[in-house]
Amino acid sequence: MGTPVKVSLLGCGTVGGGVLRLLRENARYLESRVGAPLVVDKVLVRDADKPRVAECDRAWLTTDPEEIFRGESEVIVEVMGGEQPAFDLLHRALSERRGVVTANKLLLAKRGPALVDLAVANGVDLAFEASVGGGIPIVRTLREAFTSDWVERLVGIVNGTCNYVLTRMRREGKGFEEVLVDAQRLGYAEAEPSLDVDGHDASQKLVVLAMLAFGARVDAAAVPTSGIRAIDQTDHRFAERFGFTVKHLAVGRDHGERVELRVHPALVPSSSVLANVSGVLNAISVHGRALGPCLLSGRGAGDLPTAVSVVADLVDVARARREGAGGLSTRGVQLADRPLYPLAEVHSRFYLRFFVADRPGVLAVIAGALGEHGVSIEQMVQDGGGELAAPVDIVMITHRASWGGVMRALADVDARDFVTRPSKLLPIEDA
Amino acid sequence: MGTPVKVSLLGCGTVGGGVLRLLRENARYLESRVGAPLVVDKVLVRDADKPRVAECDRAWLTTDPEEIFRGESEVIVEVMGGEQPAFDLLHRALSERRGVVTANKLLLAKRGPALVDLAVANGVDLAFEASVGGGIPIVRTLREAFTSDWVERLVGIVNGTCNYVLTRMRREGKGFEEVLVDAQRLGYAEAEPSLDVDGHDASQKLVVLAMLAFGARVDAAAVPTSGIRAIDQTDHRFAERFGFTVKHLAVGRDHGERVELRVHPALVPSSSVLANVSGVLNAISVHGRALGPCLLSGRGAGDLPTAVSVVADLVDVARARREGAGGLSTRGVQLADRPLYPLAEVHSRFYLRFFVADRPGVLAVIAGALGEHGVSIEQMVQDGGGELAAPVDIVMITHRASWGGVMRALADVDARDFVTRPSKLLPIEDA
Repeated sequence: MGTPVKVSLLGCGTVGGGVLRLLRENARYLESRVGAPLVVDKVLVRDADKPRVAECDRAWLTTDPEEIFRGESEVIVEVMGGEQPAFDLLHRALSERRGVVTANKLLLAKRGPALVDLAVANGVDLAFEASVGGGIPIVRTLREAFTSDWVERLVGIVNGTCNYVLTRMRREGKGFEEVLVDAQRLGYAEAEPSLDVDGHDASQKLVVLAMLAFGARVDAAAVPTSGIRAIDQTDHRFAERFGFTVKHLAVGRDHGERVELRVHPALVPSSSVLANVSGVLNAISVHGRALGPCLLSGRGAGDLPTAVSVVADLVDVARARREGAGGLSTRGVQLADRPLYPLAEVHSRFYLRFFVADRPGVLAVIAGALGEHGVSIEQMVQDGGGELAAPVDIVMITHRASWGGVMRALADVDARDFVTRPSKLLPIEDA
Repeated sequence: MGTPVKVSLLGCGTVGGGVLRLLRENARYLESRVGAPLVVDKVLVRDADKPRVAECDRAWLTTDPEEIFRGESEVIVEVMGGEQPAFDLLHRALSERRGVVTANKLLLAKRGPALVDLAVANGVDLAFEASVGGGIPIVRTLREAFTSDWVERLVGIVNGTCNYVLTRMRREGKGFEEVLVDAQRLGYAEAEPSLDVDGHDASQKLVVLAMLAFGARVDAAAVPTSGIRAIDQTDHRFAERFGFTVKHLAVGRDHGERVELRVHPALVPSSSVLANVSGVLNAISVHGRALGPCLLSGRGAGDLPTAVSVVADLVDVARARREGAGGLSTRGVQLADRPLYPLAEVHSRFYLRFFVADRPGVLAVIAGALGEHGVSIEQMVQDGGGELAAPVDIVMITHRASWGGVMRALADVDARDFVTRPSKLLPIEDA
């Protein structure tokens, strides 16, 4: 066996604790895979007195980042989260030609390209399987399995909280708020749920996926993002009636120069695999030009699945270093600035829902507005109170149309006095 | 860039042609990933005069294996299929410390452990992503993503022909023979379909998966294997009535010392992801102790998906060699002889179907036989002609019971004179 590979952790919360536990439990097997023992050098924490998992030797703990860099750790594992000081610490680690493993999607979405470029320039590894899809091996799949293929498109359910809430709403007929409160009680949603239910978490993950799938360096803040707060029981029921299921999706498509990225709820065919990915499970479907569709599904979050992904990365990076082959994982990676494809130019079928007073001539106005903007109707349902002038829902499935055309038609309709609430649009994705 | 990596192909059929095409089309990108150009040295074929794809330089072709070994190829890509001469050629290649990439599941199922052991002993790479699940990156997932986890169980739809035939039977209400003939016409089934529809192909793939997931060296010929010929419309309809879908599955489970492997049609819940993997698509669901369920789905066969997987392997092997890190992929792999867990001891819920003459007392006899062998009934449906003594189907869903108990109960029932055809059993798998 070779000289031990020294490893330091930045952070020791639940994921970090899980990593230490897996390193202890699987020590012999991991040693045989790496060709050398993995030895923990230091663990950077904010509070050295806080209780830690039993596998955490208190002698490792330090609150001083300099201690990490004084040591000879060949691999730095970042499980602290947040943009700073994580960015500065990892930048320094890569500059000093240490390998890096991180689970930090926010950091990667905001500053990933800078870290990747630095890793490539210095010929060191930067591994981040755990940053997207928790226990789903999507990063290594995009990096390795698609080496000789071209990723045309990807569609993912990448936020477990959204998927859990939508699944329970559909199955139990309950409202968003009621399910969210229960999800918070059960630990499937945060006390401050905005990051998840408003789509920001999914948006960060999509930016990381786009970096891998399309080699794209994009403006993360500019990705069109919406969450699931506006979805109600009526949407679930209408979707079902048309043969669809409502899912919160992250969608990416390579248009050559420009790259299409968007995060929003959408309708997927109920018989598709994606529609049947339920509860907190995540799934990512990747369409390669040669490979065709390839779908990966599993636990998108959770301490143990995330820790397993971190340790798998750690083994890869440590093994390559021990072989003198550090930097293999970033070899040949080239990122390019890619402008975002405007949402208005995206073509899709749509689910449209209008809230109107039930008056003669209303449908003619709506149909006219849609026709004027090149949107034609495939199916329509009107459900209502029965009383004249009572508010009713008019729901339509359109043929393929441009997002911009649909939005203009909706704006025209919404300007009318018979409209009781702003109209709604959900794209239909063939998963 | 480093010294070119010389590569030779054994075989140049549709997959081999696809590999040559991908190598040509993606030459620059692959070179950046490997850190050196990939250069074809020789291509072993049976008939040097046969037409080949345009990307195949005729100067590469040889019918003499010695020519391959006289050259300095660092990686040998085997896409010829069959047990011999493939085994002898790859054995020699590994003995000479050349890296090997193969897509040959039959060879791996029958002689895989010998090749793996040789590769490990010589510190060279043996990569075989394309041997199972075509374009699905299941091999690298099991090898890398599960490094620090323990695979408890796997369930796969690994034969595209079976899945295609079952999907069309269910959707179109047609019989097995009718759909099979159509599948043959469309190229989704071979003229000689036995390897697929009788389960042998799935069985070979399961043995390869067991080697990766459980480190198991098993007797491939002893894996209990059945196909889909006995499934009829009535099974599809009854399954649907109970909320299930009929799928052809390969199932593996680690029992510690012994390993459970079996291939057969089964019922899976219709709302599960596996039930919705349709047509020629394959899927493999892996349950890790820490990771939980992880499902991969995609095209299980086809020239291009298979070629993409071969080239991805080739890049990995070539890159590691150029870094002086050959053998990384087999480092630490240890296979052990593992006895098979007896089918009779497997516990499951079951779908049972009895073909009986509709006479008084028949149900009492069946219920009695089941009870005697510890099998209790959860749900039951009887469909029949209505006339007394006309043949009827009695279908039951059982609670969990041992496979052996169910088989003994069925043997007791089948010995009775009111039975018109042997009874049927399908296990129910929670996918």
